[in-house]
Amino acid sequence: MSIDSAAPAVTEADVREVAARSRVAAVELALVTRAAKDAALMTMADALDAATTDLLTANARDVEAARAAGTAEPLLDRLALDAERVAAMAQGLRDVAGLPDPVGEVLRGYTQPNGLEIKQVRVPFGVIAMVYEARPNVTVDAAGLAVKSGNAALLRGSGSAYESNRALVAVLSEAASKAGLPADVIQLVPGTDRSSVNYLLKARGLVDVIIPRGGAGLIKFVVENSSVPVIETGVGNVHVFVDASADLAMAERIVVNSKISRPSVCNSAESLLVHQEIADEFLPRITSALQVQGVVLHGDRQFAEVNGDVVAATDEDWATEYLSLDISARVVAGVDEAIEHIRRWSSGHTDAIVTSDLQAARRFVARVDSAAVIVNASTRFTDGGEFGFGAEIGISTQKLHARGPMGLPELTSTKWVVFGDGQTR
Amino acid sequence: MSIDSAAPAVTEADVREVAARSRVAAVELALVTRAAKDAALMTMADALDAATTDLLTANARDVEAARAAGTAEPLLDRLALDAERVAAMAQGLRDVAGLPDPVGEVLRGYTQPNGLEIKQVRVPFGVIAMVYEARPNVTVDAAGLAVKSGNAALLRGSGSAYESNRALVAVLSEAASKAGLPADVIQLVPGTDRSSVNYLLKARGLVDVIIPRGGAGLIKFVVENSSVPVIETGVGNVHVFVDASADLAMAERIVVNSKISRPSVCNSAESLLVHQEIADEFLPRITSALQVQGVVLHGDRQFAEVNGDVVAATDEDWATEYLSLDISARVVAGVDEAIEHIRRWSSGHTDAIVTSDLQAARRFVARVDSAAVIVNASTRFTDGGEFGFGAEIGISTQKLHARGPMGLPELTSTKWVVFGDGQTR
Repeated sequence: MSIDSAAPAVTEADVREVAARSRVAAVELALVTRAAKDAALMTMADALDAATTDLLTANARDVEAARAAGTAEPLLDRLALDAERVAAMAQGLRDVAGLPDPVGEVLRGYTQPNGLEIKQVRVPFGVIAMVYEARPNVTVDAAGLAVKSGNAALLRGSGSAYESNRALVAVLSEAASKAGLPADVIQLVPGTDRSSVNYLLKARGLVDVIIPRGGAGLIKFVVENSSVPVIETGVGNVHVFVDASADLAMAERIVVNSKISRPSVCNSAESLLVHQEIADEFLPRITSALQVQGVVLHGDRQFAEVNGDVVAATDEDWATEYLSLDISARVVAGVDEAIEHIRRWSSGHTDAIVTSDLQAARRFVARVDSAAVIVNASTRFTDGGEFGFGAEIGISTQKLHARGPMGLPELTSTKWVVFGDGQTR
Repeated sequence: MSIDSAAPAVTEADVREVAARSRVAAVELALVTRAAKDAALMTMADALDAATTDLLTANARDVEAARAAGTAEPLLDRLALDAERVAAMAQGLRDVAGLPDPVGEVLRGYTQPNGLEIKQVRVPFGVIAMVYEARPNVTVDAAGLAVKSGNAALLRGSGSAYESNRALVAVLSEAASKAGLPADVIQLVPGTDRSSVNYLLKARGLVDVIIPRGGAGLIKFVVENSSVPVIETGVGNVHVFVDASADLAMAERIVVNSKISRPSVCNSAESLLVHQEIADEFLPRITSALQVQGVVLHGDRQFAEVNGDVVAATDEDWATEYLSLDISARVVAGVDEAIEHIRRWSSGHTDAIVTSDLQAARRFVARVDSAAVIVNASTRFTDGGEFGFGAEIGISTQKLHARGPMGLPELTSTKWVVFGDGQTR
């Protein structure tokens, strides 16, 4: 299964064979106790620490190849590992070991009039596939969360991180095996080109769910081509609406924080809507506060009149997830026009209102159809860690199964267990 | 949108236009109170009663056309309506009105250390599409459950029931409108050929979820071709394993009931597994008990030796959902071989064990990976009504979102609502 640029192309049979091994491993893993899973996670963490030098060597090959291919600096930074990042990944596994085990939780349980005892119990999915880009830490995060929730992890990172991911998976898989789990609970999908992703997307019956993480293009490709059920994640065209009744100092803090604290992530604000009634006062203030931080505003006519550094916005700006120090900005007639704008352009990730008006807050919360709707706080709080989940596999922007930040329970399915004494119908 | 055999083919634009109207209606419906939804359901029920004559006339055209096309009697019976069946559909709507409203239920709610108040609330999906076969009562059931759960229903019944469904949807939609809901909360997808289903499957963004109900072929087609998220339902290759420790009188009752009480439905048993140790005693007994009820056994060598009416089973029998008075039957070495057989052949709907041995029961429950695992009761209990849901939209055999019988809560998504006082990160 070793693949390099000179290797023959990966076939569908190769991918299915790996997926079939994940399925066999998943059957065994589903029955493993919490204690054994946690011990394996600790062993995996120690193994990462011990293998730091080898991991950095493998990663250096990826970084070198990416640099030679002209990859931009921010992407190189996402790809690169150092000793500190390896230690952080190992610590992440130890943290996951400390989280409660979702498997076995009884969600509902009752006795029917005919004496049947019915309960709904959390069980692992089986095989979870992740398709993701650049950052090698996703490999370790996903493997840790999958093992903890009793699922085999079938990982397909980006081609540019192939050497890093192969080295990480080898260390994790060997450690899992040493701790008594099947080695195949963590596997890498062979191949570095899109055809191997395609084979994975057709492996219905072998793979229970596919979670894509990455840019809009990758996610769209997976969603449109998969016959395996998909959990769509992450694209965030995120809005902040500043209502007429807003505390303007609070509004400024929230808008600036939502935009600049980490512009490259999905819960960062991409669009600012301001109530007409406060435009005269708030537009110059927020424009200047954002520009001071290096933000480029793409504004409507009223914003463009504030100063010459505001770029004129087009419809494309309302649709764009910049993931950079850019923000689109417009004035709206009121909360209803803000809601209408959001319903049209939002990706359904996170949208926020800053207001002191109870009716406006309730109206916004009821009518904005997004995974997270926030009143008077930064959009950056839509996050598994900030929601108190302890860990996060991604942020779902679809309505099926999981919506918003996904923690361990979102990586499980359920099973109905019925006990009777010979009842018939 | 009126379609008959002489009408021009339905285009993708036609289907998308109807779906877009469903989406607009869904936005409004999501904000309607429980009282208004329940009142609309009662109005819809009364309207069905009042329209009985017209509905039967429309249905008679479908039945006549189906009979002329040589449709088999059992299918004609599923298609046919009479006054009693119309009254039962109306009563079904009144029953749904009496069920609790899932929308607005707070599933989780807590305050974070930084003061953020976070809650997870049930919200409607938006637009639910159903693709289903023959029985016109599904049209009314689906419309009622969708409206109750705040979702617009976009319905695509079988071509053979088109006149019936068109008449039913016209009555329901008009009644909904009379009760103050948007008329488009209940719509029929135009067209009677597979291309209109195909257009529906591509309407991602307009349709939130598609639920297919019908034969294995229909479900497979929807699953493999949809870019809209799907909830797979219903194919039931259902097993009963009779353990060595079973009370044989109970085992006989459960096997016979699981097979014969309604052979055409998905929770009926299709395969019988018997522990080797009791084969000498139990095989003649169960074979005779089933044959007396007109059941044809497709048995392994040991079953075939019981009497000449047992047909020799092939691998195809283990894979078959007969939906008729047939059952495959084999002897296994013990609970582990039974589990192995079930893991290989079961469709993951329902599998049962009859046993008096606690370890065998626990082993079976833990290792059989099906939506419902039943100990000492008929497989026919996997049913929304029997589970106490009050209503059922289908039985999910997938692991994502919902597994097993689906009631009103399974027709909803969730939204995270966060209230703060200006918190930033």
